[in-house]
Amino acid sequence: MKLTNKDILGIKELSVDEINLILDTAASFIEVSTREIKKVPTLRGKTVVNLFFEASTRTRTSFEIAGKRLSADTINISATTSSVVKGETLIDTARNLEAMNPDAIVIRHSAAGAPHMLARMVKQSIINAGDGAHEHPTQALLDMMTIKEKKGTVSGLKVAIVGDIAHSRVARSNIYGLTKMGSQVIVAGPAMMIPRDIARMGVTVYNNLAEAIKDVDIVMMLRIQLERQQQNIFPSLREYSSYFCLNRHNIKLAKEDVLVMHPGPINRGIEISPDIADGPYSIILDQVTNGVAVRMALLYLLIGGQR
Amino acid sequence: MKLTNKDILGIKELSVDEINLILDTAASFIEVSTREIKKVPTLRGKTVVNLFFEASTRTRTSFEIAGKRLSADTINISATTSSVVKGETLIDTARNLEAMNPDAIVIRHSAAGAPHMLARMVKQSIINAGDGAHEHPTQALLDMMTIKEKKGTVSGLKVAIVGDIAHSRVARSNIYGLTKMGSQVIVAGPAMMIPRDIARMGVTVYNNLAEAIKDVDIVMMLRIQLERQQQNIFPSLREYSSYFCLNRHNIKLAKEDVLVMHPGPINRGIEISPDIADGPYSIILDQVTNGVAVRMALLYLLIGGQR
Amino acid sequence: MKLTNKDILGIKELSVDEINLILDTAASFIEVSTREIKKVPTLRGKTVVNLFFEASTRTRTSFEIAGKRLSADTINISATTSSVVKGETLIDTARNLEAMNPDAIVIRHSAAGAPHMLARMVKQSIINAGDGAHEHPTQALLDMMTIKEKKGTVSGLKVAIVGDIAHSRVARSNIYGLTKMGSQVIVAGPAMMIPRDIARMGVTVYNNLAEAIKDVDIVMMLRIQLERQQQNIFPSLREYSSYFCLNRHNIKLAKEDVLVMHPGPINRGIEISPDIADGPYSIILDQVTNGVAVRMALLYLLIGGQR
Repeated sequence: MKLTNKDILGIKELSVDEINLILDTAASFIEVSTREIKKVPTLRGKTVVNLFFEASTRTRTSFEIAGKRLSADTINISATTSSVVKGETLIDTARNLEAMNPDAIVIRHSAAGAPHMLARMVKQSIINAGDGAHEHPTQALLDMMTIKEKKGTVSGLKVAIVGDIAHSRVARSNIYGLTKMGSQVIVAGPAMMIPRDIARMGVTVYNNLAEAIKDVDIVMMLRIQLERQQQNIFPSLREYSSYFCLNRHNIKLAKEDVLVMHPGPINRGIEISPDIADGPYSIILDQVTNGVAVRMALLYLLIGGQR
Repeated sequence: MKLTNKDILGIKELSVDEINLILDTAASFIEVSTREIKKVPTLRGKTVVNLFFEASTRTRTSFEIAGKRLSADTINISATTSSVVKGETLIDTARNLEAMNPDAIVIRHSAAGAPHMLARMVKQSIINAGDGAHEHPTQALLDMMTIKEKKGTVSGLKVAIVGDIAHSRVARSNIYGLTKMGSQVIVAGPAMMIPRDIARMGVTVYNNLAEAIKDVDIVMMLRIQLERQQQNIFPSLREYSSYFCLNRHNIKLAKEDVLVMHPGPINRGIEISPDIADGPYSIILDQVTNGVAVRMALLYLLIGGQR
Repeated sequence: MKLTNKDILGIKELSVDEINLILDTAASFIEVSTREIKKVPTLRGKTVVNLFFEASTRTRTSFEIAGKRLSADTINISATTSSVVKGETLIDTARNLEAMNPDAIVIRHSAAGAPHMLARMVKQSIINAGDGAHEHPTQALLDMMTIKEKKGTVSGLKVAIVGDIAHSRVARSNIYGLTKMGSQVIVAGPAMMIPRDIARMGVTVYNNLAEAIKDVDIVMMLRIQLERQQQNIFPSLREYSSYFCLNRHNIKLAKEDVLVMHPGPINRGIEISPDIADGPYSIILDQVTNGVAVRMALLYLLIGGQR
């Protein structure tokens, strides 16, 4: 089986079969990162460009490691040092990169839809590493991979996503993915952080942490973007935290074998208490490990000669 | 045949035979970037340092890709993160790099002559990736390569270079190269953008776009440096654009098979209209593709064991 | 013989045997950097992360070249572009990197003890590339290697370290190393730059350059941190320089075959006169060359399958 499109733009565009293909391929790559020699020659002579218009250690590093473990050449371009400061349009940047014949372009951009525009424009494979508040498909894929690894399935589960749903591309991609895979998704957060029409995406909405996580299999906590706090979008961190911080008391409302996830970076004590982040329910670091494997899988499926 | 010097500092220093050698070698490397496995082992175990004191996506990326496709190890150093901020002189930076035994150092610097000073100082090959308003030899070489690819020759052509000639290292390097190769060069731009003694370089000067591009084979548009605009060097972008923007009307004055070039990044609607930049005359993206090949050729000729 | 610990945190933690092992291993790697093909496959498939929370060209570049010459994959992360700006703790950054399964993490951090905390936290090998004013073990190792290369031994020598001893991690690491190896260490600098209890480290203290360098085998000049000057820590550069700049007059007080060292970057004319920095006594660039070899040795000994 192959992926239908040349690009990974969002979970919305992927079928259940494609998601399963990616998760299975990723699972087979987990082992490479534990070898004495953590490298396979699969993508030798391929060029992967990481084009990041927003700062990101973990996602960029994860893609760079994924590329290198497959023996691809990786090129990092960050917006601040790029000719974008000279006023070049994204389209021209993309066309110029295209002309240098890379095989894949990984893009993170603050504008929703930027990767989609690129994908239409250039012949190379585009991987969306986060576009505005729209989608972050590789995060949702690594989340689903981690759930499947721990629970054996991504189907029939009850998953609560808690935090600033309105501005979270992680939430959107996971909602698309988890509902597609047959799980039930609950979202929760302060009223101003819940988009009005979110129920149309097939989720249940609560403005209350206790109700949201009651009897769930998975709690996925979102990062509160402290940068946004200065814009007075929500009253105070203290208030947010008193209502929505996951801690050892409220976690008891969830199923006994609940798993706690977080896309990182964590704000300890704000959206999640340290004992929960580091405790037995947490699979946060498994998510990071699986992130490398998912990105290897995508690079392999898109440019590894399988298409 | 071999290159005479260990360095590529400017087109001024290159003979016609050397330029032809570089263009022919580059043409032979074009094919590598279209292979399934875009990599040859030529420079395995060689180290290429990209030492950029000015921001640049395309040139740095082009050199990095060129190095990697030849299997060299590439090291990027950008001025803002370098010990230059600790007040180290360029000479000490260079000598320190030299002591780490790289094979080639690619340098971009805002001071004219910086690469020449380095070349005298260190034993490694220095490649000038742009020094102030002085020279940008790899740009001129990729321009000549693209002209030769499309027209079959770089000799006997009529080439107009239009824009801020006075502050353009691209213009200077191309004037050296194109006149050396036997083409006729016309320069045009507002009076204050034309150096007084430019005619000594063997070019014809016009202050008028229409006259400049009449019956030419090639129009090479230069980028208006918007950064400089704030220094009130020219009246207004609107005024510049009304006189010197290449568009579908004035392009008709050139030969029917005219080719339009631009070193990028493009300011659409200022020095070139979008329909011309993206239209049938434009070979702007071929320039980018050939840039990788020219840089592979230079690295190969300088440090590939041929010297 | 093997190293006892998985990490290189400071010279304080190393035994004489371990230091000798590192210096001997480094000496055997010197030759690799002079080969036509400067690369050995030793660390193929290993991942080395350079995690720099302070800017540094030479140390980062030296580690990157060292890794690449051993065929490791190298990943650079600098603090300004990292998720540290999103408020992530160092511990979370480290645990996230750990989850991506690198083999070694090279860390530079402004806080003394940061590498030690990391080392306790993660299973990978940590190499301290400078932590606050605490230690800079790879610098001391390359210094000792250079001394041994030139003098045949690191034992029985008289070494003067001159400058801002109080704030110098280079001084501290060298004091640990040189006294351990059986050399006599003298420190000198303005009174406010000498820690009160420094004599406890087994060194002799002078506030006077002439006395300090009298009959020494080695003079190691420290860099005056011009950044700190603005904090009014010492009266004036002119005053500092008039008392403590090493020049062709005062150098005559040292032994005839004295060697002059400096960790770089040099402030010419402040702590060292240009004729001394570039003169026959200077082994400053040998230090840089040996820096690559020492870092290759450490990577090899820590993650090269020897442990």
